[in-house]
Amino acid sequence: MNREVIKKRIKAIRLKLNEKKLDCLIITKAANVTYTTAFSGDDSWAVITGRAVYLLTDSRYTEQAQKECVGCKLIQRKDSLAEAAAKLLKKIKSVRTVAVEKSTSVADFEALRKHMKLRLKTVADIIESIRINKDNSEIAAIRAAVRIAAQALEQTLDYIKPGVSESELAGRLDFEIRKSGATNSFETIVAFGPNASRPHHQPSKRKLKKTDTVLIDFGARYKGYCCDITRSFAVGKPTRLFERAYEAVEQAQAAAIKRIKAGAEIQEVDAAARNVIRKYDLPVYGHGTGHGLGLEIHESPFLKADGKGSLKAGEVLTIEPGVYLPGKLGVRIEDDVLVTETGCEILTHCCAHT
Amino acid sequence: MNREVIKKRIKAIRLKLNEKKLDCLIITKAANVTYTTAFSGDDSWAVITGRAVYLLTDSRYTEQAQKECVGCKLIQRKDSLAEAAAKLLKKIKSVRTVAVEKSTSVADFEALRKHMKLRLKTVADIIESIRINKDNSEIAAIRAAVRIAAQALEQTLDYIKPGVSESELAGRLDFEIRKSGATNSFETIVAFGPNASRPHHQPSKRKLKKTDTVLIDFGARYKGYCCDITRSFAVGKPTRLFERAYEAVEQAQAAAIKRIKAGAEIQEVDAAARNVIRKYDLPVYGHGTGHGLGLEIHESPFLKADGKGSLKAGEVLTIEPGVYLPGKLGVRIEDDVLVTETGCEILTHCCAHT
Repeated sequence: MNREVIKKRIKAIRLKLNEKKLDCLIITKAANVTYTTAFSGDDSWAVITGRAVYLLTDSRYTEQAQKECVGCKLIQRKDSLAEAAAKLLKKIKSVRTVAVEKSTSVADFEALRKHMKLRLKTVADIIESIRINKDNSEIAAIRAAVRIAAQALEQTLDYIKPGVSESELAGRLDFEIRKSGATNSFETIVAFGPNASRPHHQPSKRKLKKTDTVLIDFGARYKGYCCDITRSFAVGKPTRLFERAYEAVEQAQAAAIKRIKAGAEIQEVDAAARNVIRKYDLPVYGHGTGHGLGLEIHESPFLKADGKGSLKAGEVLTIEPGVYLPGKLGVRIEDDVLVTETGCEILTHCCAHT
Repeated sequence: MNREVIKKRIKAIRLKLNEKKLDCLIITKAANVTYTTAFSGDDSWAVITGRAVYLLTDSRYTEQAQKECVGCKLIQRKDSLAEAAAKLLKKIKSVRTVAVEKSTSVADFEALRKHMKLRLKTVADIIESIRINKDNSEIAAIRAAVRIAAQALEQTLDYIKPGVSESELAGRLDFEIRKSGATNSFETIVAFGPNASRPHHQPSKRKLKKTDTVLIDFGARYKGYCCDITRSFAVGKPTRLFERAYEAVEQAQAAAIKRIKAGAEIQEVDAAARNVIRKYDLPVYGHGTGHGLGLEIHESPFLKADGKGSLKAGEVLTIEPGVYLPGKLGVRIEDDVLVTETGCEILTHCCAHT
């Protein structure tokens, strides 16, 4: 990880802290710890003051932290994270008002309050609002994750034949992702036939039939960064209902993508997709039209019917409308796009729709 | 899921709520939602009042919830979870004091406070203190997870030969787990040679050498329940240092297991293992000697040097001492045991140590 990239991020965070008159931020969310220190392990917090960045970790991670961390001081804790943070800040005289991320659990926040005499304030979205804008190293990592995922699906296609189970197919796909040195960005969804009407179906022992449709929703995580792709298709000759649903979803996705560019209203992009589904007289999906992705598989911006604000260049998000007919079928198509000043770049082009 | 099992759990929770004069509990931790409703999805909360149990979920999960849930009323929310909980409780006149789990995020807790006029209290360990004692259906699920994991390792052994990468081996193992209809209970750790000195090493592209040692830490999750197993071994002739470290770890594990029975002090079990490592004049591991496991991969009880209390019959936990020599080697042996009145049953016997 480039030292200059981390420096720039810390500078941006300090600017926001200064605006809010906060001396220090305790970072408890793992993705935010990674973003500010380059450390990729768990159970560790980062602390940013006006002068330094600290990583509070334990002996399980010391070696890893020494190898990964950029621009921060390592503190090997033996106490709880809250106690370690309190001890550290007690020594730093200049710190009076401490911000804590709102994603912190109530238990950890209460522990901080117990061990610390400083003024505590909870804050939301300080780091998330910076993370939403991806820098070049982040976009490169997402591109690499997409390449790995697309290749893994390609390698798995031969196994998609009658008799294979949802679990086995998910396993084959995951194995190909692993072989490339990546991990899953979330638990792979493989759904045959009517199982696909459950957007978050868990792969079962159900075996593929000749007349089935297949829905695969999966992603790779590479260098910490996620991609997220869904493909839907029929194994044999598709039914007319499937064809109609597929066409509706494809058109809905295209309508949303067409609207995306810096400045586009989130609600309008979301509505563009839903309106197409409505025109086809099919039930409108209950989930969002898309979500940001990066160090987390779901992060800002969230494209929902009641979403607020507009898109900005440098944001990476999924566009994933669907049609779900319980007992009958499910179709979803999901691609990842990078918002630009004039439109967007589809990052998942290498993974063919059909 | 058996209706009587769920009923018994809800009854036990209501008893605890009554003791604390609480009318209602909002359950936000996914494992606790599963424990009380049998629902296995995400992004959903459960609410227990004196009269009913509710699941607040969204359209992505409606079909799944209808299929899985036992003894609870489904509420398909369109608002945020906090708003949906507030709306629900507004309608129930008998509820005045609402408990919220301390594992809830500060953001969610603040949202509840904003939308609800009732008295809110945070509580810890209400459900966890019941979950610590496993019932027969839970022990059966853990046994099944162990069988799947042991079989998966067995099927993977042939691939452990010079040239295979850590990532590929992890992928093979994960695939075998998937084929059995289970998932990973956590991200598989495969570490060759000195990489094993990092207890939470992430599998890399490093290839196995003839002179390497191998550490594999993995588990299956079946019907929601986890197992957790670590095996360490040399590919060729082991070095004397490895042999000594291995012997120390094996003896340390045996010493801890020998102490386990209902009533045994957690600190004594932990110390028994550490003392053996000390006797061998090797560095004592910084992590705990073990942890409970069930719906979560890490849950109560935690076997640590400063752990409190004693073990009880019906608890399931790992025993996993290790020796870590940075730049040289890492050895850890981990088995899962069921605490009984007179001792313990080793659940992972089917997975041979070497």
